[in-house]
Amino acid sequence: MRIAVLGTGMVGRAIAGRAAELGHQVTVGTRDVATTRAGDWTEWATAHPAVGLAGYADATADAALVVNATSGDGALPALTAAGEANLAGKVLLDIANPLDFGKGFPPTLSVVNDDSLGERIQRAFPRARVVKALNTLTADLMTHPRQLADGDHSVFVSGDDAEAKRIVTELLASFGHTDVIDLGDITTARGTEMLLPIWLRLYGTLGTAIFNVNVVR
Amino acid sequence: MRIAVLGTGMVGRAIAGRAAELGHQVTVGTRDVATTRAGDWTEWATAHPAVGLAGYADATADAALVVNATSGDGALPALTAAGEANLAGKVLLDIANPLDFGKGFPPTLSVVNDDSLGERIQRAFPRARVVKALNTLTADLMTHPRQLADGDHSVFVSGDDAEAKRIVTELLASFGHTDVIDLGDITTARGTEMLLPIWLRLYGTLGTAIFNVNVVR
Repeated sequence: MRIAVLGTGMVGRAIAGRAAELGHQVTVGTRDVATTRAGDWTEWATAHPAVGLAGYADATADAALVVNATSGDGALPALTAAGEANLAGKVLLDIANPLDFGKGFPPTLSVVNDDSLGERIQRAFPRARVVKALNTLTADLMTHPRQLADGDHSVFVSGDDAEAKRIVTELLASFGHTDVIDLGDITTARGTEMLLPIWLRLYGTLGTAIFNVNVVR
Repeated sequence: MRIAVLGTGMVGRAIAGRAAELGHQVTVGTRDVATTRAGDWTEWATAHPAVGLAGYADATADAALVVNATSGDGALPALTAAGEANLAGKVLLDIANPLDFGKGFPPTLSVVNDDSLGERIQRAFPRARVVKALNTLTADLMTHPRQLADGDHSVFVSGDDAEAKRIVTELLASFGHTDVIDLGDITTARGTEMLLPIWLRLYGTLGTAIFNVNVVR
């Protein structure tokens, strides 16, 4: 599958590297290719020669699945740059969290309670098939869940399009996830985005990001 | 230990019944004793003869530990009726969630993101030793956790007073909880209160309230 991963940070690199390793054709999208290449990208790219790099629109144009791995603030600008027409009809896996660091640490959420970033993206790009997922755990566990309790923990999908959720669920299963819970429509992204505050506190208490919730039932 | 349980609903009854079963002297506090007796209280009370019933202030006056098992909206009025002086120096276990059903189902939170009900209660009653706990699971699992996965799931405590958290943690252990995670000060109650949206969606998806999260690490 052709996959565009928008975002060159820790999450974008984790998803791009893992998807390429699994045989997908992956292009990472960035705002400005030259700026990204001038940073520490080249070192990472040398270790991942199969992953391409392009501007947001070029990366998205021929992708079947687009991953929003930008920061919460950067999501709508990046997707706008990718282009509404380039997103139309495509599965858009949204991993971003709307974190607001303006008041210091821990961050609050800039969208919360009666709305979510997932919903905002779906409203802004009504022809995209948005699926919120993987925003509830650290990047290394998103892509390599079996390293913790042999994968015995849970992730979630939220979205209005059942087929898009099926495609994302299959991708998650290929990463090693064994418990992907379908919470319902895109409004259920409020629930997973609102997990961030307890995630941040658990990170502080446990002293590691390698943890996740298992929904015991 | 003398325990006052403020609130006559499902949560209050569960905590009161379990604490009495474990040998504590329990009085349930209510706004108006006659009104409570005129409802379905008598049937429950007949099955739990060791549990007393009194007004908020009378129930609280000689308790060592006070449980806020009211609804979120009812918490501050009930605690005000219990009396600031009656709460001073005491452990105040706050189980309430600030649910707002004004916009229909699922409810939103009336306090969220940069504040929490737990913090509001601590600010309103600075001499009480507030511990937020048990607000993340259904009443029957609060008091009988071993019925699910032999208790292999997590609960949380948040509060500014280490000794108060120790007392609550011991009470939770006596109920059967084996993984009580201390998240830190009372501001960490934001994290557990913000679990409610995903809890409500999981309740809908799973079709049962008998589930909980296990923090796998």
